[in-house]
Amino acid sequence: MQQRTCLVALLVVALSLQASLAEWSYQTSWFEKAREDKVARGTVWPKPLSATTGTGTPARFSLDPGKFKLVADSSSAAGTDKECKEIVDHALSRYADLLFWIPEDERVSVSGDETVDQLVVTVTSPCSRYPSRDMDESYAISVGYDGATLRAPTAWGALRGLETFSQLLYEDNGKHVIDRVTISDSPRFTHRGIMVDTARHFIPLPYILQNLDAMAYNKMNVFHWHMVDDQSFPFQSTTFPDLSGKGAYTRKHVYTHDDVSKVIEFARLRGIRVIPEFDSPGHMMSWGQGHPDLLTRCSPTDFQPDIYYLGPANPAREETYTFMQSLFQEIREVFADECFHVGGDEVRFQCWMSNEEVQQFMRQEGFPNTTEGFANLQGHYIKRILDILHQIPQRTRGIVWQEVFDTASIANDLTDLSLDTIVHVWEWNDTRFQGEPFKEELAKVTRAGYNAILSSCYYLNYISYGRDWPQYYDCDPQDFQGTRQQKDLVLGGEACLWGEWVDSTNFVPRMWPRASAVAERLWSPQSVTDSAAASPRMEEHRCRMVRRGIPAQPQGPSYCKYEWNIQGDLPNYRPVITSSGPRVAAAGLLHSVVLSVLVLAAAKLWA
Amino acid sequence: MQQRTCLVALLVVALSLQASLAEWSYQTSWFEKAREDKVARGTVWPKPLSATTGTGTPARFSLDPGKFKLVADSSSAAGTDKECKEIVDHALSRYADLLFWIPEDERVSVSGDETVDQLVVTVTSPCSRYPSRDMDESYAISVGYDGATLRAPTAWGALRGLETFSQLLYEDNGKHVIDRVTISDSPRFTHRGIMVDTARHFIPLPYILQNLDAMAYNKMNVFHWHMVDDQSFPFQSTTFPDLSGKGAYTRKHVYTHDDVSKVIEFARLRGIRVIPEFDSPGHMMSWGQGHPDLLTRCSPTDFQPDIYYLGPANPAREETYTFMQSLFQEIREVFADECFHVGGDEVRFQCWMSNEEVQQFMRQEGFPNTTEGFANLQGHYIKRILDILHQIPQRTRGIVWQEVFDTASIANDLTDLSLDTIVHVWEWNDTRFQGEPFKEELAKVTRAGYNAILSSCYYLNYISYGRDWPQYYDCDPQDFQGTRQQKDLVLGGEACLWGEWVDSTNFVPRMWPRASAVAERLWSPQSVTDSAAASPRMEEHRCRMVRRGIPAQPQGPSYCKYEWNIQGDLPNYRPVITSSGPRVAAAGLLHSVVLSVLVLAAAKLWA
Repeated sequence: MQQRTCLVALLVVALSLQASLAEWSYQTSWFEKAREDKVARGTVWPKPLSATTGTGTPARFSLDPGKFKLVADSSSAAGTDKECKEIVDHALSRYADLLFWIPEDERVSVSGDETVDQLVVTVTSPCSRYPSRDMDESYAISVGYDGATLRAPTAWGALRGLETFSQLLYEDNGKHVIDRVTISDSPRFTHRGIMVDTARHFIPLPYILQNLDAMAYNKMNVFHWHMVDDQSFPFQSTTFPDLSGKGAYTRKHVYTHDDVSKVIEFARLRGIRVIPEFDSPGHMMSWGQGHPDLLTRCSPTDFQPDIYYLGPANPAREETYTFMQSLFQEIREVFADECFHVGGDEVRFQCWMSNEEVQQFMRQEGFPNTTEGFANLQGHYIKRILDILHQIPQRTRGIVWQEVFDTASIANDLTDLSLDTIVHVWEWNDTRFQGEPFKEELAKVTRAGYNAILSSCYYLNYISYGRDWPQYYDCDPQDFQGTRQQKDLVLGGEACLWGEWVDSTNFVPRMWPRASAVAERLWSPQSVTDSAAASPRMEEHRCRMVRRGIPAQPQGPSYCKYEWNIQGDLPNYRPVITSSGPRVAAAGLLHSVVLSVLVLAAAKLWA
Repeated sequence: MQQRTCLVALLVVALSLQASLAEWSYQTSWFEKAREDKVARGTVWPKPLSATTGTGTPARFSLDPGKFKLVADSSSAAGTDKECKEIVDHALSRYADLLFWIPEDERVSVSGDETVDQLVVTVTSPCSRYPSRDMDESYAISVGYDGATLRAPTAWGALRGLETFSQLLYEDNGKHVIDRVTISDSPRFTHRGIMVDTARHFIPLPYILQNLDAMAYNKMNVFHWHMVDDQSFPFQSTTFPDLSGKGAYTRKHVYTHDDVSKVIEFARLRGIRVIPEFDSPGHMMSWGQGHPDLLTRCSPTDFQPDIYYLGPANPAREETYTFMQSLFQEIREVFADECFHVGGDEVRFQCWMSNEEVQQFMRQEGFPNTTEGFANLQGHYIKRILDILHQIPQRTRGIVWQEVFDTASIANDLTDLSLDTIVHVWEWNDTRFQGEPFKEELAKVTRAGYNAILSSCYYLNYISYGRDWPQYYDCDPQDFQGTRQQKDLVLGGEACLWGEWVDSTNFVPRMWPRASAVAERLWSPQSVTDSAAASPRMEEHRCRMVRRGIPAQPQGPSYCKYEWNIQGDLPNYRPVITSSGPRVAAAGLLHSVVLSVLVLAAAKLWA
């Protein structure tokens, strides 16, 4: 018996020795050491306004994933105000899922460590249901002996603070840890957007939602949805079903009201505004498939027949404006935001010039047959459109591409362009309207008293070999000649990913982390400009996004501890081909049932 | 009662009328019509050598997914030869899954149509287990009244033919149909490769397999695995565990023997050779993490200390060659292919120049301290490496990057460079060794009697805005000044996607369909050169890949009927974080058990 005990003991020792050796045989490689320098663990992107590392011991705390709780301060608006509570509760549940990532079998016990066991979230004022242009996104975080607290005037600030808190956690030898720190943060600009083009390629809903998640991880707050364009009209209008019925790529390449509502709700819960763009009078070829009379018929001598025979909206017909009023009313009812992007870019004056009806209208209005005259005509059209926005019950503010400002400057000294219009500067160097490089355009727009948004230097669709994010990072929306007052008129900027070369196969990795550079430019203080210093934080942030399910592409040779992966060793990657068939069929069935009831009722009456 | 029957009848009529109206309300849009012109349905990529549309009626046949069968002719080698049968049976099961794609609820019955009910696959000769440099990939397909047949001398040809047959199917109003056709096809070049770099970023196994599937869909037959480089050494060697133990990014960023075997088996079943590259004497920084003595210690005056202090392999030490012999023997046992890429590019002579031991060796060998002398030294090193390949039991043929040829030309008139070496031309315009644009390099290499592979104009890692595949399509490997004999020495080419800017987040969409352009260049006749004419087939092929689970990126505004999608409306995209922990642990446990048994046995003996 004694001998057997001895053997068992020997066995146990041998086993444990082996296990330890297996562990020891792996040493931190040169690369991992090099990486320690390259990656700034537990740093926040975008960089907060102010962060002070706490003094005192311990300098940092451990978190126990089994014990740690995110808690709403129920005596504050986070508990007492219905709107606050809904947003905060949703966020707490999302962040509870995101907070810890070390696989359970690799976690090391934190017993004996100084720990932080909860984060208490306090909201100090009642909340609005939707994020808006003037929402307060500030917050303050404290991590210290007395625990961790997050305090914000609004739920929107609480969302930004939760994101920051989640980024403060880092991994140290199998533990989730956080440094003693005090943070006080708020954004530099109120408009920090991403423009997605769903007309050149249709982007299925899951990718739009995935991108909204990524925006939240980067504290971006505007999703500018460039929904329709020449190539397709995916918005399924209930007022004018032929718009998508004939103008969408197929009957499956559409966004229904229900789809749009899902996107808006998903965005709302993340503090992101959804601003629709329905570009006119140019870029409307797809509208003309179902409604050819909306568009100007160009003379075939000037344009290749069958392709370009339909040009911009016909500004000479009253029916055009009636149509737009009905459509915009419908859109405005679906979209919650105060702002509506009405486009106005790249209008082909030659087509208007070639159309007799338009020419007659111009003579009638006293517009000369010159560049100025066509500028007058575009000004007239846009004024009517902006008037429509002002008149629909939910008073709406227009955003326009810079050409609207440029042509209005030429046409009528801006008297027709309502001063609440926001001018979206996008051209790098506009040569068509005696325009100027974007910095001078920003100066001109703000000198005239308009709010401005910058995108010229944030066109992510332009790709090139190598590391290109510093060029976005280096471009500041207030870097132009102007007074303090002028600079204050700049609301922010938008990273634009035009859709000619992206669809659901490559849209998200091409967006991130390149858009993250724009996110930090627009959130962090103007003094944060050193892209070399930002690099280790960018590296940390890229891998954090990957860990969270955003396939953010790499920025040079590197690795993430948790690589983007798919489950299993063998390919299990085939997409599920979804069909909108059932939805259409269900709607059809409902329709049929209603009709049948009516028929039955009629039959009953007749009997 | 009669009244009730009447009401029910009315209800039925109303319901069915509604359903029909719902269907009718959708009309083919302008875009779909335009797309018909843009997309060449049922066309084959790469374009076959010869395809003749059959005369006679019907001009086409329908296929019934419920009935259609892929059948091996069991009296041919496809049934009687073990190796043929295994490859063909696997392929039949794969293609049975790929062949039909219209969702069941959208399929239209083919009853009453002329149908094809089976494809009979005949293989006429016994098969080899592994694809090889001289395999016969030819095949013939006939689709006509007497049914569909596929005839090939080898299983490899049968694989290519099955791919072609699957591409001939197209969708017409809810039916899968195929035209009456006769095809006779074989590739122009024998070496049609993709190079993947798994050192700058680790590529998880599922993506390597996914890429192999895509290669099969493009009839490419060589996976050149650039496995290790300066940045990391992911190959887990059993002979030298420190190579990956200290040189891999982490212990999880590795390919085990088992992983490699999985890749090779997956590739074999698709007729794809797997050629490993272990680049030396340059690009070896990661080797030096575990084995610093392998590398030349550069003088710190010439190089930044701590980063570049270790240069190329040390050619002066016999231990270097002993090490390489053991490692290459291990690698050759894992990899089945006759060819082994030994690299030889971008060697930093300055480091050799700065090292006393190397200098002494050069004096001893009589190599002058000049460019010629260092060329002699590199020639000496590569000769030793190629001799090792020739001496290991599985006689192995070396592939080298072009610098090996260039330096050997300078050093010793090529007398030291074995004539069975294949020279891989990659530089666009080599300026370092009095080199020349790649066309002249091809002329020089083949004039000297060596086989050549071209990659210079197929570097897919270089990206730019817009449609770039025509530039690959336009580049022909035999477009240089030389005799017929010289041109015949060109084995083909490889599309290279170097890994600095790609990992699993963006690797596959960046590869495809850009690599498809290279695939057609290397398979189809030299006369197939018109990229505009190829465009509609490329469009069809891109969407076909997407449908099959390859996220091939778009090539301009467009849509696919079946877009790349993810299941469900809400994001369900978070990757599963896989951990190699269990595998390591299991190996450790096995080891422990074995040791324990030995300990127990010893104890028993001792007792």
